Amino acid sequence: MAFDSLSNLVEVAALKGRKRIAIAMAQDGDVLRAVKSASDAGFIIPILVGDRQKILDAAEEATYDVSGIEIIHEPDQQNACVCAVRLIHENKAELLMKGLVSTSVFVRAVLDKDRGLLEGSLLSHLAFFETPYYHKVLCVTDAALNIHPDLNEKADIVRNAIRMFHRLGIPNPKVAALAPVEIVNPKMEATVHADLLAQMNRRGQITGCIIEGPLALDNAVSLESAKHKGITSEVAGQVDILLTPDLNSGNILYKSLNFLGGAVSAAIVAGARVPVVLTSRADRPESKLLSMALASIM
Amino acid sequence: MAFDSLSNLVEVAALKGRKRIAIAMAQDGDVLRAVKSASDAGFIIPILVGDRQKILDAAEEATYDVSGIEIIHEPDQQNACVCAVRLIHENKAELLMKGLVSTSVFVRAVLDKDRGLLEGSLLSHLAFFETPYYHKVLCVTDAALNIHPDLNEKADIVRNAIRMFHRLGIPNPKVAALAPVEIVNPKMEATVHADLLAQMNRRGQITGCIIEGPLALDNAVSLESAKHKGITSEVAGQVDILLTPDLNSGNILYKSLNFLGGAVSAAIVAGARVPVVLTSRADRPESKLLSMALASIM
Repeated sequence: MAFDSLSNLVEVAALKGRKRIAIAMAQDGDVLRAVKSASDAGFIIPILVGDRQKILDAAEEATYDVSGIEIIHEPDQQNACVCAVRLIHENKAELLMKGLVSTSVFVRAVLDKDRGLLEGSLLSHLAFFETPYYHKVLCVTDAALNIHPDLNEKADIVRNAIRMFHRLGIPNPKVAALAPVEIVNPKMEATVHADLLAQMNRRGQITGCIIEGPLALDNAVSLESAKHKGITSEVAGQVDILLTPDLNSGNILYKSLNFLGGAVSAAIVAGARVPVVLTSRADRPESKLLSMALASIM
Repeated sequence: MAFDSLSNLVEVAALKGRKRIAIAMAQDGDVLRAVKSASDAGFIIPILVGDRQKILDAAEEATYDVSGIEIIHEPDQQNACVCAVRLIHENKAELLMKGLVSTSVFVRAVLDKDRGLLEGSLLSHLAFFETPYYHKVLCVTDAALNIHPDLNEKADIVRNAIRMFHRLGIPNPKVAALAPVEIVNPKMEATVHADLLAQMNRRGQITGCIIEGPLALDNAVSLESAKHKGITSEVAGQVDILLTPDLNSGNILYKSLNFLGGAVSAAIVAGARVPVVLTSRADRPESKLLSMALASIM
């Protein structure tokens, strides 16, 4: 898959055939509208978990005819999340999606030691952007889940991202470990972590990618900017994955691209046995559809 | 001044007449090209401090005829900075600009207790953006100087920004104290600080502005996004000043807008007795010119 655009994700997903997706607390008009679009596009078979009557009401509001669609009545939000996760365990569903439930409750069910879905050491958020200001899809991680990751956690966030890129058929993605500057400054933890991650890559501790760091965002996305700073790197101007130093910066970058950058985005959560779709209320309908398509392809 | 665009800054600056600007370590082609443009536009009279021969060489490279322009020969970078600062003290210059010298050396001269220019309690960086995705000029602070400001420092960063807005003739700017989420989460320092800053504003500890926080970036710039989250605030969708939680996030926002957001920017350093121009090598020539115009107007 050439990954220079998000616009063909839906088409590619449809070609790969329908995947069953378990939606925890599906009683939300926006979520059901996206589910309807994905179903109409031919790449999912939904299983709606939550309060049956509320699901029916929300479906009506979304003008979504859910007759013939499996609904599992589970009014309690915690139980609904556990139930959706169980559907994955029992191979009754291949994808998982969050509905009208707080992220923390949902994530807890996914992380549960005995009955959860954690595959690596942590869950992390991957956002993919098609922006008019860059020549290929840019991935930002982590904009939603890990507040202040330490070095080990950052290494695992990178590994989660790499695994997803490999699943997309991109063998050796270029990763920029971001910091405010491109030099090592012991007073800026981000620069120290970024250097260490690059070294872990060179020493074979993080494989299947090329990591450069520290890079400031401009050095990562612009070869000209990197040259200005005297940086020679095959990542500069060719980056695929932007590892942000922390949630403050990841979230601001995510929202800057979406709200002040004219970008289109899709997002998934990696680190679980299956790709997890976790969209937010503020996401555009298009983003929700693209996120489901992305999860489906992976 | 209506502040919905940066494009008329040069014109406004020229109307206000020429200001004398002291440039520390002026021997840089890019800096001198910007100085030439500002001089041609009619709003500055440069005083070039640094190594005379290197300045002459750089001026030649920049096709800038510096005959008739005051050059103060001071080859040592530290002394050159001290000398430029002294020109302000002696009222021989009204504006200060950094040339080919590291930010830390330059800032040290500005911060010097006896002979420096510090007016408030700290220096902070203000970047002003004209972006195709927002209806007026957006200010981001701090993208360059304060690494991990505590609550008091953030209050002073806001005060520095307010003072600059007042000088621009905008009496009551709207400030968003940014965080990854719009709720208070004790595990996220940014949300706690943002709430406290908003309260300090309501209690009259920070005046001359309206502060709302915590706001995520989308809530700050989009009324629709704020409504999605149930937030009613006169800052939402009308924000003038984005206070970022720290340097990691401020710097990434600054670079995202410039390199992945099609924005035009100008930047100054506030907190000194006079506005300070501190551009970076990677800044576009247009940005350097606009930054000088902005400083000149203030």
